[in-house]
Amino acid sequence: MKLEKISLACGNGASENNALIEGVFYKHFKNEILEQSNDASIFQAQGKLAFSTDSFTISPLFFKGGDIGKLSICGTCNDLVMMGARPKYLSASFIIEEGFEVSKLESIAHSMAKECEQNGVRIITGDTKVVARGQADGVYINTAGIGEVIYEGILASNLKSGDVIIVSNSIGKHGASIFAQREGIELVSNLNSDCASLWQVLESVFASDVKINALRDATRGGISAVLNEWAKASKVCIEIVEEWVPISSEVQGICEFLGLEAYALANEGTFVMATPESEAQKILNLLHANPLSTEAKIIGKVSKEYEGKVVLHSSYGTKRFLDMPSGEILPRIC
Amino acid sequence: MKLEKISLACGNGASENNALIEGVFYKHFKNEILEQSNDASIFQAQGKLAFSTDSFTISPLFFKGGDIGKLSICGTCNDLVMMGARPKYLSASFIIEEGFEVSKLESIAHSMAKECEQNGVRIITGDTKVVARGQADGVYINTAGIGEVIYEGILASNLKSGDVIIVSNSIGKHGASIFAQREGIELVSNLNSDCASLWQVLESVFASDVKINALRDATRGGISAVLNEWAKASKVCIEIVEEWVPISSEVQGICEFLGLEAYALANEGTFVMATPESEAQKILNLLHANPLSTEAKIIGKVSKEYEGKVVLHSSYGTKRFLDMPSGEILPRIC
Repeated sequence: MKLEKISLACGNGASENNALIEGVFYKHFKNEILEQSNDASIFQAQGKLAFSTDSFTISPLFFKGGDIGKLSICGTCNDLVMMGARPKYLSASFIIEEGFEVSKLESIAHSMAKECEQNGVRIITGDTKVVARGQADGVYINTAGIGEVIYEGILASNLKSGDVIIVSNSIGKHGASIFAQREGIELVSNLNSDCASLWQVLESVFASDVKINALRDATRGGISAVLNEWAKASKVCIEIVEEWVPISSEVQGICEFLGLEAYALANEGTFVMATPESEAQKILNLLHANPLSTEAKIIGKVSKEYEGKVVLHSSYGTKRFLDMPSGEILPRIC
Repeated sequence: MKLEKISLACGNGASENNALIEGVFYKHFKNEILEQSNDASIFQAQGKLAFSTDSFTISPLFFKGGDIGKLSICGTCNDLVMMGARPKYLSASFIIEEGFEVSKLESIAHSMAKECEQNGVRIITGDTKVVARGQADGVYINTAGIGEVIYEGILASNLKSGDVIIVSNSIGKHGASIFAQREGIELVSNLNSDCASLWQVLESVFASDVKINALRDATRGGISAVLNEWAKASKVCIEIVEEWVPISSEVQGICEFLGLEAYALANEGTFVMATPESEAQKILNLLHANPLSTEAKIIGKVSKEYEGKVVLHSSYGTKRFLDMPSGEILPRIC
């Protein structure tokens, strides 16, 4: 009999648990290390490794531009890539609510497998827990990732006066599209999350021997959170020119409708980079050659004007501070 | 103002999120890699590494003999140790329900830090998510761990006819004590979970150059699940002598009261080992020298009698198969 809904027994560590693991997870994540079913998986390593983790609680589980499965792979792999690492191995751990449809879990596992391919990464260890109805909301996923550091020297405290700030994509698409979907706002045009694996974008940049001082994907808290953290960590001022920042008309529309700022909206496939001005054009040329970063632009520069602060220059010649976001406009965005 | 309860804003990736991370997690997990607050943490590696993950959803969060914090470190470190690895680095990721008391989170973080010390392991990367009331039950924790393989050749498929089976401790204490606590059964005597870090127990065994064929901590599904997996993977018969199996009178009492079998009850600081008979006494001597394994005993042997099966010999001279547990007697045991 085919299992249709997850039961508490699927988390018992024995028969039903094994059936779920083999029937869904091994089927999609197929690789010889995982299938050994050991308590821990063994791999050979050398040199500097990067290690990162994220838990994913996004609602809805399936959204325009992705699902929790795709996001759970992109999110952790992107964190590795942001430290100059090539993603190699992942763990995947599931907390599933009793009654969750197995077909949805299959579809999530399928997305995960597909996104692993994009990153050249393998899921080699995992875990499954089942909690009773009302003790989770569908499924939560944790991934932890290990990558090989191939590019060194990237640090939040590494920004220098004179650096330029590059953003790889138009901002706020993940936050705005989840917001619109959750509030039931229907738009004529298509607004999708930017959810994507950034290894594909940055592999060529790392290989090109340019100088990157800082690099971060602008997830929760948006580019506001990243820029404020950098300004504080590097004791510099980051000056952003508002009209240089790429924001799609759809995101702008949602922001105006709901009174939000695109700077604070989450992205899931968009990074911010600080680099010496002399390197910027070479990097932009590489980014523009990739479909995931055709909108890459310089949006500002690093100065000594106001130490630890981010300044926004408006098109009217005025300026204001862009503060670290506070409060929570949109829980469970990732 | 001191934060007393977790709000949704504590998961926003910005101000309040940073305050929680610095005020609770960095405070307890203090180390220079973690405090760099990078997207991923970097460490130097060489040789064979073990990688494992577990999510912890145990209820109640605080139990006799431990709490979810201690368990989250023991659980993942023990999985590494079971593959012959010395635990080195951990990730820790929290899914917290809105309204959860910060004092409880502090106490959990404190337990985690203490147990990390027992393993000589450091938490170097992490994540925090907050979900609305009713979308989790207090807090769920995921840990992923990386260890250096110092002992090779341990495999579920490695049991040989003639091996003996050793158990390190009297069985079923974790399952029985959680069950008693959840059902409100008060016992005169003390029944605590066996929750413990097994690195302390096995370090000397790995160093002693004995031959270990298989090794596994008997968590969900108890020794029943481990022995059945081994019998199947190694295509052998495992014969257990019932009266040799150490079971405390408290666990026996709970089992009789509730109609359970101690073999299927979870352990969180007890392992099963298969080793050539010639090595057994040396290993037992080492185990008996450690307070966590004074009850270690040989409980049976490996034969070719019934391939893929586990046989229980009773004190009356009868025998029966011990099957892989099925169904779920006790959800959220770990």
